[in-house]
Amino acid sequence: MSIRRGITLSFDVNSLKFDQAGLLPAIVQDKASGEVVMLAYMNKTAVEKTLATKETWFWSRSRQELWHKGATSGNVQKVLEVLYDCDRDTLLVKVVQNGAACHEGYFSCFHNRIEEDGSVTVVGEKMFDPDEVYKKK
Amino acid sequence: MSIRRGITLSFDVNSLKFDQAGLLPAIVQDKASGEVVMLAYMNKTAVEKTLATKETWFWSRSRQELWHKGATSGNVQKVLEVLYDCDRDTLLVKVVQNGAACHEGYFSCFHNRIEEDGSVTVVGEKMFDPDEVYKKK
Repeated sequence: MSIRRGITLSFDVNSLKFDQAGLLPAIVQDKASGEVVMLAYMNKTAVEKTLATKETWFWSRSRQELWHKGATSGNVQKVLEVLYDCDRDTLLVKVVQNGAACHEGYFSCFHNRIEEDGSVTVVGEKMFDPDEVYKKK
Repeated sequence: MSIRRGITLSFDVNSLKFDQAGLLPAIVQDKASGEVVMLAYMNKTAVEKTLATKETWFWSRSRQELWHKGATSGNVQKVLEVLYDCDRDTLLVKVVQNGAACHEGYFSCFHNRIEEDGSVTVVGEKMFDPDEVYKKK
């Protein structure tokens, strides 16, 4: 059995497997609580800027532009760790999540739980009113 | 400010936003430890089977077939919670992860950490030798 643990390799952003659109999914987890707060997509530039600035950058598929998370709401994500998976096609970014990650005002975007009886329960507390925050722009 | 917390809605799998290939990413998190162990893709059938059987099912993009996670290794994932995000295009599945989630033998697929100096450290312990487990089939 080969022991790989602790071996240090060199990181090359080009070794990541981006999809046909040049993107890969990045899971964002609040390190302190362990809560998964969102998933968004990064292109090569977003990965590089996230590593360089220690704040999260994504590619917005709807707006087709680079997106500095928190630029509007003020809730930037401080990056503590960036990991990639065995297939090199997904990132896990562990952050300090200040305030709500979700544009709807929840700490986590994953606030809809599917129950056994087929109902959906909204879990998690609303931390801000999106109408108030985003109207300020 | 509208209070949505605790409101119960009805779940309809067709309300999820699958991509052009009919897939959406599903993040799998070990509920007890909080560790994100993998990300894989589900089609509508995989979502339905996951909810019905309380074990994870995915669509394998490489093999182009439905994939019951753990069928080969014996490490099926017991599903405790399924959540969807505000955009309805990603699932978060909280499970009991028995043994390694990663086909390389690690508890989590996210075992490559990018360090500040541009090096990569393999984190996490190898729980089995993939050569031994998968050769048995």
